Amino acid sequence: MDLLFKGGTVVTATSSFKADVAVKNGKISAIGANLKPEKKAEVIDAKGKMILPGAIDGHTHLAMPFGGTIATDDYFTGTRAAACGGTTTVFDFVLQAPDGEGMWDAVQRRDAICKKDGPAIDYSYHVGVGNATTQEMLDTMDECVNNGITSFKVFMVYDFGVDDGQFFNVLQHAAQIGALVGVHAENNDVNKCLNAKYLAEGKTEAWWHYMSKNEAVAGEADVRAINLAKMAGTSLYIVHLDNKQGVDAVVAARAEGYPIFAETCPQYLAFTKDVYKDGIPSLGLRARDFVCSPPMKGKESQDALWNGIKTGAVSTLATDHCPFLQSEKDWGITTKDGKPGNYTTIPNGCAGIENMYPYILSEANKGKISFEKAVEIAAANPAKLFGIDYCKGAIEVGLDADIVVYDPKKSFEVKNAENQHGALDHTIWETSKFKGYPTSVYSRGKMVFDGKDYVGESGDGQFVKCKKVKFKGPEF
Amino acid sequence: MDLLFKGGTVVTATSSFKADVAVKNGKISAIGANLKPEKKAEVIDAKGKMILPGAIDGHTHLAMPFGGTIATDDYFTGTRAAACGGTTTVFDFVLQAPDGEGMWDAVQRRDAICKKDGPAIDYSYHVGVGNATTQEMLDTMDECVNNGITSFKVFMVYDFGVDDGQFFNVLQHAAQIGALVGVHAENNDVNKCLNAKYLAEGKTEAWWHYMSKNEAVAGEADVRAINLAKMAGTSLYIVHLDNKQGVDAVVAARAEGYPIFAETCPQYLAFTKDVYKDGIPSLGLRARDFVCSPPMKGKESQDALWNGIKTGAVSTLATDHCPFLQSEKDWGITTKDGKPGNYTTIPNGCAGIENMYPYILSEANKGKISFEKAVEIAAANPAKLFGIDYCKGAIEVGLDADIVVYDPKKSFEVKNAENQHGALDHTIWETSKFKGYPTSVYSRGKMVFDGKDYVGESGDGQFVKCKKVKFKGPEF
Amino acid sequence: MDLLFKGGTVVTATSSFKADVAVKNGKISAIGANLKPEKKAEVIDAKGKMILPGAIDGHTHLAMPFGGTIATDDYFTGTRAAACGGTTTVFDFVLQAPDGEGMWDAVQRRDAICKKDGPAIDYSYHVGVGNATTQEMLDTMDECVNNGITSFKVFMVYDFGVDDGQFFNVLQHAAQIGALVGVHAENNDVNKCLNAKYLAEGKTEAWWHYMSKNEAVAGEADVRAINLAKMAGTSLYIVHLDNKQGVDAVVAARAEGYPIFAETCPQYLAFTKDVYKDGIPSLGLRARDFVCSPPMKGKESQDALWNGIKTGAVSTLATDHCPFLQSEKDWGITTKDGKPGNYTTIPNGCAGIENMYPYILSEANKGKISFEKAVEIAAANPAKLFGIDYCKGAIEVGLDADIVVYDPKKSFEVKNAENQHGALDHTIWETSKFKGYPTSVYSRGKMVFDGKDYVGESGDGQFVKCKKVKFKGPEF
Amino acid sequence: MDLLFKGGTVVTATSSFKADVAVKNGKISAIGANLKPEKKAEVIDAKGKMILPGAIDGHTHLAMPFGGTIATDDYFTGTRAAACGGTTTVFDFVLQAPDGEGMWDAVQRRDAICKKDGPAIDYSYHVGVGNATTQEMLDTMDECVNNGITSFKVFMVYDFGVDDGQFFNVLQHAAQIGALVGVHAENNDVNKCLNAKYLAEGKTEAWWHYMSKNEAVAGEADVRAINLAKMAGTSLYIVHLDNKQGVDAVVAARAEGYPIFAETCPQYLAFTKDVYKDGIPSLGLRARDFVCSPPMKGKESQDALWNGIKTGAVSTLATDHCPFLQSEKDWGITTKDGKPGNYTTIPNGCAGIENMYPYILSEANKGKISFEKAVEIAAANPAKLFGIDYCKGAIEVGLDADIVVYDPKKSFEVKNAENQHGALDHTIWETSKFKGYPTSVYSRGKMVFDGKDYVGESGDGQFVKCKKVKFKGPEF
Repeated sequence: MDLLFKGGTVVTATSSFKADVAVKNGKISAIGANLKPEKKAEVIDAKGKMILPGAIDGHTHLAMPFGGTIATDDYFTGTRAAACGGTTTVFDFVLQAPDGEGMWDAVQRRDAICKKDGPAIDYSYHVGVGNATTQEMLDTMDECVNNGITSFKVFMVYDFGVDDGQFFNVLQHAAQIGALVGVHAENNDVNKCLNAKYLAEGKTEAWWHYMSKNEAVAGEADVRAINLAKMAGTSLYIVHLDNKQGVDAVVAARAEGYPIFAETCPQYLAFTKDVYKDGIPSLGLRARDFVCSPPMKGKESQDALWNGIKTGAVSTLATDHCPFLQSEKDWGITTKDGKPGNYTTIPNGCAGIENMYPYILSEANKGKISFEKAVEIAAANPAKLFGIDYCKGAIEVGLDADIVVYDPKKSFEVKNAENQHGALDHTIWETSKFKGYPTSVYSRGKMVFDGKDYVGESGDGQFVKCKKVKFKGPEF
Repeated sequence: MDLLFKGGTVVTATSSFKADVAVKNGKISAIGANLKPEKKAEVIDAKGKMILPGAIDGHTHLAMPFGGTIATDDYFTGTRAAACGGTTTVFDFVLQAPDGEGMWDAVQRRDAICKKDGPAIDYSYHVGVGNATTQEMLDTMDECVNNGITSFKVFMVYDFGVDDGQFFNVLQHAAQIGALVGVHAENNDVNKCLNAKYLAEGKTEAWWHYMSKNEAVAGEADVRAINLAKMAGTSLYIVHLDNKQGVDAVVAARAEGYPIFAETCPQYLAFTKDVYKDGIPSLGLRARDFVCSPPMKGKESQDALWNGIKTGAVSTLATDHCPFLQSEKDWGITTKDGKPGNYTTIPNGCAGIENMYPYILSEANKGKISFEKAVEIAAANPAKLFGIDYCKGAIEVGLDADIVVYDPKKSFEVKNAENQHGALDHTIWETSKFKGYPTSVYSRGKMVFDGKDYVGESGDGQFVKCKKVKFKGPEF
Repeated sequence: MDLLFKGGTVVTATSSFKADVAVKNGKISAIGANLKPEKKAEVIDAKGKMILPGAIDGHTHLAMPFGGTIATDDYFTGTRAAACGGTTTVFDFVLQAPDGEGMWDAVQRRDAICKKDGPAIDYSYHVGVGNATTQEMLDTMDECVNNGITSFKVFMVYDFGVDDGQFFNVLQHAAQIGALVGVHAENNDVNKCLNAKYLAEGKTEAWWHYMSKNEAVAGEADVRAINLAKMAGTSLYIVHLDNKQGVDAVVAARAEGYPIFAETCPQYLAFTKDVYKDGIPSLGLRARDFVCSPPMKGKESQDALWNGIKTGAVSTLATDHCPFLQSEKDWGITTKDGKPGNYTTIPNGCAGIENMYPYILSEANKGKISFEKAVEIAAANPAKLFGIDYCKGAIEVGLDADIVVYDPKKSFEVKNAENQHGALDHTIWETSKFKGYPTSVYSRGKMVFDGKDYVGESGDGQFVKCKKVKFKGPEF
Repeated sequence: MDLLFKGGTVVTATSSFKADVAVKNGKISAIGANLKPEKKAEVIDAKGKMILPGAIDGHTHLAMPFGGTIATDDYFTGTRAAACGGTTTVFDFVLQAPDGEGMWDAVQRRDAICKKDGPAIDYSYHVGVGNATTQEMLDTMDECVNNGITSFKVFMVYDFGVDDGQFFNVLQHAAQIGALVGVHAENNDVNKCLNAKYLAEGKTEAWWHYMSKNEAVAGEADVRAINLAKMAGTSLYIVHLDNKQGVDAVVAARAEGYPIFAETCPQYLAFTKDVYKDGIPSLGLRARDFVCSPPMKGKESQDALWNGIKTGAVSTLATDHCPFLQSEKDWGITTKDGKPGNYTTIPNGCAGIENMYPYILSEANKGKISFEKAVEIAAANPAKLFGIDYCKGAIEVGLDADIVVYDPKKSFEVKNAENQHGALDHTIWETSKFKGYPTSVYSRGKMVFDGKDYVGESGDGQFVKCKKVKFKGPEF
């Protein structure tokens, strides 16, 4: 026994109970009533605290090239920030290069960058499929699966996205090899038509980013993606679900027994499209600072997402963390090249990696959902969906000791300049007040956050192999 | 440490993992990797076995007067049978007497009988409300809640059932005092109209029992009950849900965020209305032996129930155990009083208390659902709904050591004369073959079934106090 | 040829076209291009006018005893007002006496009163069933059908209403004899529970009339009524549908192919529950003057009803005309007997018989719906549903010459003291401004309204025999 | 007066009534009771007959180049066959050439061919949009509308089909100019994926034509098309709807108030996918003879289509007439070029232009639907949707005298060699037995079919100008 958390309340996806938690060799070795500390074991007093599994952020874009620049946080600064927010595993997106690069090759290319940066916590990847036109290319999915990468993602938008045919091929192939396919669902053609129309009309402000990617543009694609998955006879994971039509479609498909899962992000729960009107001037946040894809939607959709979390239609929470400097966001006014900018020339993405778990736990603490539900969507369900529940996602004997000691009485206000640990110069979460906050965070039994500072070491994070997955229905 | 289960696989509602389980003073004291047996601790070798929580049967009618007789199993023989099938807690129905008896008075009246019979396992009650016309009578619900009975049930059928007004009153009152209302939902008026019609036409066979309580008769009432609960702003628990229209209504209400829960029973999953044609002659079972209320429905409804279990629309499994002798079932031919009988003179109810857990675990073992799902609906969810998750329903530190050691390789065939432990002379489950069976069952750390025989003692079962419950949405 | 309407635009339920219309012996004898007037034929210049079928008001309560008084308009003043609003046929409700009176006896009893009053236009009856407990009583329905009364109505509320069993009996019997069953759908039990609760809390104002018969109270009953009709395998006509849940249920049932039809009334289209707050003081209308059953509902329901009209879910428009003097409405403050009154002591009902057709045609004229749709719901569909399309409901060769000459340019403002032709001392339609108004109205070829005054004769109205009806699906 | 139909029963979309019908100068001049024949008027004895409007076939492909050949019926033989089946107007498809041809240019190109062939009945066109990428090209839609072509169609499949962007552009533009957009909805990408898969697996038979264009492939596209129309804020017309998912989506959109309309074809009502197994050998029909796009679907979809007709979700009936010789169908075995063929090398299309009206009237005559409904979907609704209700689609004063005298007692069996009037060497309708058949057909008052033979003249058919259309909701 190396560590013993005494006197706390363990929270799992289904229940909370008082128990001590022992850790040995980086793993949870025992959960018990009044466990006796073995000698040399460090005892952590957890009275009045909750013992939570570290969160798993299933959606990050670290050091990602996008819109003519690179997302601000690299694999170290991003994961450092994650650790300080109680997230102990991230799944980052690898984008397959358009030049014929195989998928496993793409993973290796990115993993070299990651290892060089030195991740603070454990990590794995989803592969963003950019080319699924040939059987040969589809076969490189197998290589990924055999090497422990079992989730893929297709984009229905962007130039590097896929058409329905490639999407369908990927779905069919994934079903055969034990992989899960995620999808960024927006109707590319309609988005482009609206862009052409708005720009021709001189509508260049951030508001039109929302309008060109409105509820219906996303909803249509959600519905289509689900229909394609049903045709392919396989499961589907809709990333960053943001709209009511999509939630309704997920509900309907799950009620019919289809293994359809959805993720949403804190920004869709906390903000609405109103931020694209004027931003939040009092905080120095401009509308363009909130530009991410998909954009935040209206109140009706926000309500549907919260209801989806409560009813199980939304299975996971993730961040889509992809931060850019305010000077880069300014490219919506004047581009990098000095030309007049517009909403399409703003790099897409916002920060969130350090805020997800504190945000959702704070909402639980305020009574919006249960703590069990927060743990379920932020830790247990991502672990199951991405095939790492054999080692992550719960306070359970035998799993990695990725542990958050959470004080429900600690209050916290996000101040980027003072208490955030990423590399960005601003955050859309500025001044958010959280009820409750981690007092310490452990990664495989080693403290990485002491309640104030990052206390881990760059490079301590390890690649986590994912096992094959197969879902027969909406079991969770 | 009094007991140590070594080397098994613990199954919870959300996961399965290898771990040892220690028991002390009748409670689970530790779950760990390679726990060392303390001295005097009995070690149970669980290699290759599963360690499951005992099932909670939320729906039994022991020693219940009905149709001119009393259900065959009393509080001892019924609970003995339960114990031998891995069920370690039962919720029995108290029926309020029509003479103005208060609800807590009714509980005490029945509990005296129970204590005299000597229950084999822990037990609690739901109160079947027969009279909710006055505020004074509604106030006797508070007495129950304060004494640890927090669930009530109304009957929309039978002469002792309530009208919509009393139902609505009970729902409103329950919301105020932290209680859950269950409902037996069938349209009484239509049922009676159809009875009058069929009997006038000389249709007396068991088939017309089904026809008079067909899918639509149940479905209408399910829909109405949900609408009443929505109006009252409270949760609802539909007992023995048996039809597709009802499942669809539960799905819709839950998707809207309402705390609507449903129970189904093994008989609706394993049999269809076809049994009312000729029974199963090869087993000596007549159509009338399958007469229970509500009757089994068609294949489409059966499929909907299974799908409801998979998708979460059906939250619990229970038996509605209410057995009658074949000689009593014969009253459908010639009544007790020697007159010509018909389907309405058959005592309603079948046996099942010993078969529920083996049946659903066998289905899990065959791949129909996961073991986690079986544990969820047979143990974890009833514990939450009825307010006993503080002591029952999971393999979790601090809970009662109600433990089933389950061998997934053991095969078992139901033979009433040889291996069943109740008092009935027949069973509708005769010759059912189960894949997997308990090898031992423990109630609060004391063995009650050794894999073959009942080894407990009459009277060891204790009354379990239920805590108040409040559900804001379909959280599980 | 007795009359020739020249140069107008004929409007049917499906199209509008320029044509002349000839009338002979009270019937439409020809529709043609440039019909030549025969000698002695009166020629009516209809240039710029529309030639519409007279409306059929399928829901009136003339001279009805209710709440301790009698509805203000008798069979003459009520039908006179109808005539002056372009309504040329009314269906009045006969309420079966509770003392065992047969249904045809009830019709004859009321018809004697009607004949004595001297109706201004043609009329027929629906029978309000108060007693359907015996086969003998059900058989009196046959007498009605054989004598030309083919529609019945049950009340799910009121003391004289029926329970689900009688309702089901009526539905089943109606299917056998070619009759249509209408239903006033509100949950009686919940209504009574809420009344008891509100009155106990001292809530006596008209607002609580709405609250005790809110959207959910009506919606539940609509859903139940549809379910009962589906079980009985027959058609159903929901009178005065007023809420979204009900509209949704009608839509769903029709989409499945069931012959479910709904009526709404102008008051649910023009007003919302807001009138129960303070009435409309500037017009001298108090909240209690708007008390009718069911009460007006919220905006969401109002929108659903309009949408239902557009999409066909709502088949007909009728008035539920049942006026009471303001001094009688005051019984909500002080009862007839001098006791303190409350919302339950207000006679239920409002005026509308003269305003229905002008109102809906005005809405058509303003573009809300098409004129064809207005004609469909106010004339064609009621004729089909109540079995009088063989003689009424359209401008069609062979039908009765019940003709409205409508000037879409004429403007009209309701002023009860000046231009209304009923007996009431006020109207909820006071100051309503209509775009377009009849310039003359003909009943079987005889003018009854000249654009300003009633020009017919008391007693000219004849009883219209209804033929048997059978609807296999939602054909219209 | 030139013609007088005496003693028949006029059938409209909403009613049937006995009346005489007079025709003057090719138009219906009067409908009346006992109209007196003017001198020189030809009197047609219609006793016992029905007077129906000629059908409008909104979907034909005459002389269309497809799959390496040209559809067998040209504008004369095709319209001659139509006339002999009671269809008096056809809408043929013009396909825009891919080389930059403007849409009105395309119409003129095809109209020259049509005029040369000499059509037997009146006709108009829909424009099949092959190129909508530029505003300039979209503007050629205006030219069409200004010249009386107000309906367009996009193909979501085929190489000449459009992507979602062009579709969306067309929808938006159509809304502005008063046009209706039709859509052939199948998922092109999935269809192509399945083709590649099946052919790679050596699956070449006609059955795989169905499998590659199965229910889900069509249903997804139906749903998407509706979503695009909702986004564009305009109406939509789904041609040859063939599947349940599509019907359900139409029902849902209409219930929400969207102006979504659907057409189905007799082949989807009369046949199922079973024909792709072995054809109907006893009639000399091979599976490949039934190959059309979309292919016939399963029984569940067939039932949904019939229900859709009854409930109004399906608005029109049309043929998609596009016949090919059996020798051309053989290209599925050996291509034109002598290579091994497969299901993708079979020219797509079947005959039906002469059978539509007799088929649906026969179904009405047998009781499946009402005669009014048959007239509504085959004549009245197409006239409204395509903007020709000012002259076609009903027996109504002022409209063209396109009249079918129909004998409900005449029996008829399709025998291609004996009694069909097109150019094809076979028909999938061979041996179909119809209850009731036309005894004469008139086009603008001139007889074209005498009950046995075509008696009109090539070239008598005239181009019908369509007026602009705008639908605010599902009004019919």
